[in-house]
Amino acid sequence: MEQTIKREETTLKVDEIKKYDKQYNLHSWSAQSKLNPMVITKAEGIYFWDEKGKRYYDMSSQLVNLNIGYGNKKVIEAIKDQAEKLAFTGPGNAIDVRSELAKKVIEIAPDNMGKVFFTLGGADSNENAIKMARMVTGKYKIFSRYRSYHGSTFGAANLTGEPRRYTCEPGIPGFVKFFDPYVYQEKIEFKSEEEASKYYVNKLREQITYEGADTVAAIVLETVTGSNGVIIPPKGYLEGVRALCDEFNIIMICDEVMAGWGRTGEWFACNNWNVKPDIITFAKGVTCGYVPLGGVIVSKEIAKHFDDNVLMCGLTYSAHPIGCAAGCATIDVYKEEKLIENSREMGKVLGAELEKLKAKHASVGDVRYIGLFSAVELVRNKETREPMVPYGKDPEKVMSKLVGMLKEKGFSTYSHESCILVAPPLIIKENEIKEAMAILDEVLDYADTLTH
Amino acid sequence: MEQTIKREETTLKVDEIKKYDKQYNLHSWSAQSKLNPMVITKAEGIYFWDEKGKRYYDMSSQLVNLNIGYGNKKVIEAIKDQAEKLAFTGPGNAIDVRSELAKKVIEIAPDNMGKVFFTLGGADSNENAIKMARMVTGKYKIFSRYRSYHGSTFGAANLTGEPRRYTCEPGIPGFVKFFDPYVYQEKIEFKSEEEASKYYVNKLREQITYEGADTVAAIVLETVTGSNGVIIPPKGYLEGVRALCDEFNIIMICDEVMAGWGRTGEWFACNNWNVKPDIITFAKGVTCGYVPLGGVIVSKEIAKHFDDNVLMCGLTYSAHPIGCAAGCATIDVYKEEKLIENSREMGKVLGAELEKLKAKHASVGDVRYIGLFSAVELVRNKETREPMVPYGKDPEKVMSKLVGMLKEKGFSTYSHESCILVAPPLIIKENEIKEAMAILDEVLDYADTLTH
Repeated sequence: MEQTIKREETTLKVDEIKKYDKQYNLHSWSAQSKLNPMVITKAEGIYFWDEKGKRYYDMSSQLVNLNIGYGNKKVIEAIKDQAEKLAFTGPGNAIDVRSELAKKVIEIAPDNMGKVFFTLGGADSNENAIKMARMVTGKYKIFSRYRSYHGSTFGAANLTGEPRRYTCEPGIPGFVKFFDPYVYQEKIEFKSEEEASKYYVNKLREQITYEGADTVAAIVLETVTGSNGVIIPPKGYLEGVRALCDEFNIIMICDEVMAGWGRTGEWFACNNWNVKPDIITFAKGVTCGYVPLGGVIVSKEIAKHFDDNVLMCGLTYSAHPIGCAAGCATIDVYKEEKLIENSREMGKVLGAELEKLKAKHASVGDVRYIGLFSAVELVRNKETREPMVPYGKDPEKVMSKLVGMLKEKGFSTYSHESCILVAPPLIIKENEIKEAMAILDEVLDYADTLTH
Repeated sequence: MEQTIKREETTLKVDEIKKYDKQYNLHSWSAQSKLNPMVITKAEGIYFWDEKGKRYYDMSSQLVNLNIGYGNKKVIEAIKDQAEKLAFTGPGNAIDVRSELAKKVIEIAPDNMGKVFFTLGGADSNENAIKMARMVTGKYKIFSRYRSYHGSTFGAANLTGEPRRYTCEPGIPGFVKFFDPYVYQEKIEFKSEEEASKYYVNKLREQITYEGADTVAAIVLETVTGSNGVIIPPKGYLEGVRALCDEFNIIMICDEVMAGWGRTGEWFACNNWNVKPDIITFAKGVTCGYVPLGGVIVSKEIAKHFDDNVLMCGLTYSAHPIGCAAGCATIDVYKEEKLIENSREMGKVLGAELEKLKAKHASVGDVRYIGLFSAVELVRNKETREPMVPYGKDPEKVMSKLVGMLKEKGFSTYSHESCILVAPPLIIKENEIKEAMAILDEVLDYADTLTH
């Protein structure tokens, strides 16, 4: 059959894009009648432009995935090459980029890691990690934390602790939640990070005992909690969780879907504490979203288990060829452009700016940052630490108003509970951080008027 | 920061691809030590080649997704163009190809359909469809069938009736299974298709009554059952299910991940019976796997519900720009190359070949076909209809031996239970069908020796 080589250029004008979007598309996490989506017409580096030609600093890297920014030529070329060469073959077959990417991932992963199972994204990775933990241990309970988001498919949503999990309830048997080391809003005053860690790890040990250690397959945690407020583990916490896992033969799963790939100034966030999980799940930064891809990195020990036991996981698009090609190129970009180092260096600049905001604004209760991963936690009162909005609610739409004001001034990001996320692409420069943070500074003046 | 434009050509040789694959990759649905994956070096049209230069007829379209075959220039160009233009923007934004694809999908969908929610693949689509059904109805039970596969994430796996669901148990509360209209292996002799349909629909009605109609949110079914043996609904069956759904205010969800996109000789399989579901889930054929994409098509009525109620669904990569661009081009290809029509026409050729095999071979108990979607069901004995292998087991590895013999002779496909799947790309020509089916004919001579 003959093929027409070129597809006619799409002829949709901006008003048609809007019209058909409204008429035919369902957008996520929204009531559709309240939406007025931006039409994205152009994007380059850390910026994107809307239909009016207005430019935005992408200060959340879209959904904390665009670590290398927009329009990276090397990754684009890799996608184009692979599309020409072999756009698809099933996950059962071996191909060059699938082998190459697995090798590249294991080379940068902690040294206890053995193999990679490639998936389609973060939720899928977390789903597969818990399935593997159950297969390996023969146990079925899965521990995860309240202030967490692990995805919205049923397994990942049941892992999730925050309200987005309610959509997948009544829940799956055996999913148990524990408390986060959310020191800033804890009612106890700790003398040190180490003391806080000791407290939280002991509570976790107690809960494992009550649930029955012999029934617990895995503990799943975001190494650094992402959407739920960039909660950074206090010193000794992850080491404590690791020790509990060793003691009770529990698989330690670090969800690094957001925190991995240089976001915290290290390839993987767990490197910041020199803790070696049994499983790391990832997505986002591996291809920066240029093509959907995720993965599950497993220890040599777990890999060995599946030598002779069937790995009961997989989907049609697992380990997609174009995704693998994009992943190989993205890893090259991190290395060649020294983005891990830049995340660390620019993280210092960002941290200094955040501390200035905290010192200046009555509404800024806490700032938390590691690499280029940060959150500004807003309060009604610095003394009492009363959150800007109550948990799971925003009756006066305060947070969406603040995010709207930021966007109006060209600073694009999102909020969650009382936190504003700041996580720009890892290619950002010092002057760009300062320019963008000046916008946040202005908007926080308004937030200050809401304090008492 | 400077960018190196060209990524160096991958230098992996075949033996390195194999070595690194074995060392670093976890492959799906397998014990790793027993694997010896083919290295795919080239693919074009309905063929692919392994590392020894051997050519294979792809008679399963990989995982029943490569409807347009390999190397379609139009879709490749669309991928390349979109990668250059805008590889990624979050699902909250409007872009040309997202609007265009939604419009194109609704234009070919049944006329009761209103909007599309784009996902990453089939499992993800089914997960979202059941979440939507629960949100819309406020009820929580989900009916699906035993001989079904809907994906391997927790929600999709709990929908699934066959053994792959065991990996996601203990199961999610409220997932109920019912029997398939698997007439060939039914112990009752029906006088007509209509009589069979009446029987199965009545049993389903009885089961809904026992479960409590007021608790049932959705009935989910593969319009034509795929992996589990291409079970084609008897006349009147789908209409009967539709009537039950109307009577009890239950959402009818047709999983067309495999059966959609021309596979059965119609854009959507439900068109064969003129039944209009409330929700259609799709993936595979929409991009043919060139880029991961899936979707949930909802009726105008359901779309309206989400005007003012929040759609609690979504992942980072939902409605991916490159996926949407590939989808637009793929739909153009179906139309320009008249692939729906070709599926219907070549389906007749394939059907005739299958009937010949059934008439000739003692081991062929049944052949089922619709468009280019077909299965050969093997038996030990045509009279008793004793299956070639017992349910969920293949102790003597009979089926994998047969699939291996086929592959050895250049006919690539897979089996499930006692069925061999035959579902070639929709671009296949008459002589290619006949050449490939001659290979199956040869291998069935061996299967005949296993009958008694």
